[in-house]
Amino acid sequence: MSRPRLLLVPAPLDFGLDASAPLDEVLPKRTLQEAAGLQHWVVENAKTARALLKRVDAVIPLALPLQQLAIVELPRPPKGQARTSVDLSPLMSPLRAGHDLGLLSEAGLPAVADPGAALVAAAHRAGFAVHGLPGSSSIVQALAASGLNGQSFAFHGYAPTESTARLQRLREWEAQSRKLQQTQVLIETPYRNPALLQALVQALQPSTVLAVSRALTTPQEWTRSATVAQWRQQPSELPTDQPAMFSWLAAASG
Amino acid sequence: MSRPRLLLVPAPLDFGLDASAPLDEVLPKRTLQEAAGLQHWVVENAKTARALLKRVDAVIPLALPLQQLAIVELPRPPKGQARTSVDLSPLMSPLRAGHDLGLLSEAGLPAVADPGAALVAAAHRAGFAVHGLPGSSSIVQALAASGLNGQSFAFHGYAPTESTARLQRLREWEAQSRKLQQTQVLIETPYRNPALLQALVQALQPSTVLAVSRALTTPQEWTRSATVAQWRQQPSELPTDQPAMFSWLAAASG
Repeated sequence: MSRPRLLLVPAPLDFGLDASAPLDEVLPKRTLQEAAGLQHWVVENAKTARALLKRVDAVIPLALPLQQLAIVELPRPPKGQARTSVDLSPLMSPLRAGHDLGLLSEAGLPAVADPGAALVAAAHRAGFAVHGLPGSSSIVQALAASGLNGQSFAFHGYAPTESTARLQRLREWEAQSRKLQQTQVLIETPYRNPALLQALVQALQPSTVLAVSRALTTPQEWTRSATVAQWRQQPSELPTDQPAMFSWLAAASG
Repeated sequence: MSRPRLLLVPAPLDFGLDASAPLDEVLPKRTLQEAAGLQHWVVENAKTARALLKRVDAVIPLALPLQQLAIVELPRPPKGQARTSVDLSPLMSPLRAGHDLGLLSEAGLPAVADPGAALVAAAHRAGFAVHGLPGSSSIVQALAASGLNGQSFAFHGYAPTESTARLQRLREWEAQSRKLQQTQVLIETPYRNPALLQALVQALQPSTVLAVSRALTTPQEWTRSATVAQWRQQPSELPTDQPAMFSWLAAASG
């Protein structure tokens, strides 16, 4: 028996868009083959995981019928408690039994901008092999399409939702961007896209370049990269039913 | 005629490894189809671009024979001058003539950790559409496999090569990692892998978790993620003929 692996299985980025595109259009064959062969899964959401596995099955037949797969959701910590308070050891029982285990999130690479990293860390501590399968991440797809500095960047996840805290944080990140010439990248929940865009356009300096992307990796991909002055002069509308990525780079001072 | 696009074409991450793997194992069909149809390219290195296009052709026949493709290298700025001093306008002549233009780097997504971002920015300023095709980036593949915080991270490109400057920078980045609970990510030129690993193991605190990955997205993928104390107790050797990625997260203070 070969050494069991925790396999990080990327999901496509077409969440909220036309989900009927054949999966091999956006994921490579090796990823689909490994996914089709897995019998044990830990996932962020079981329902969307099953929908994705149906799309895998349409390209490469699953080794076992969908109903026979062991699909476990990542436990959420009790309200008010840290995620580290959850014992992830039971999730690794397939690995202890010698089986490969797949980790899957809602979109993109698992364990990046989602709660899966704790399981990856636990697998390393327990001495299991961790392998990432090839796939796209919205963070770097957005960064590449922005034309902003890709040699130095920071991803901060989500901005604060409270407006005063958000304004303060955006200004701190802009100062850091100017000082380090470091591109700043944020993700946002779809329904808050317009609010974050408005906050960025108001908070950032006119000379800062702001890029917004949506529908990344699909034929409908859209990226606008322009100075904040230009965004103010000619605003863009953002849809509230699909994720968007926001990145900006402040002009060097002096 | 549809609106011309600057297409960001991802290269596989198997540079320096067995290059004979069929390309559809690691790149999705949409990427290969778009790449096979392109007649105009701007690339980091023409020789490796041709080698990659041969691998595309083996899976999806190129629209034109390789010799008939227009392949232009990204100009390097004169020594001592900033990259912004180079006029990139001539590179966009295919777009002005109504043709799609492909941008390709040596590995992973173009315009991330390579000089292509300036062309993407120029295309945005000139009003052309920019679309990124789906593919892997070593930065997020390494981050996912590390099990470190993927909700907040910074990529710094390369560390300084001079040892005193490097030591100082590593300590600054570790302090930032502790303060912000932000994972720090570096790439290194293969022949400097052992020197950087040694510097990290010496410079970082024993409780900091350090992850090193190589052969990302391939069946030979290897990631070790352990505390600096464990790296000191049981060192690992790194090959000098393939790229590696380094990431670390300092333990929260107090």
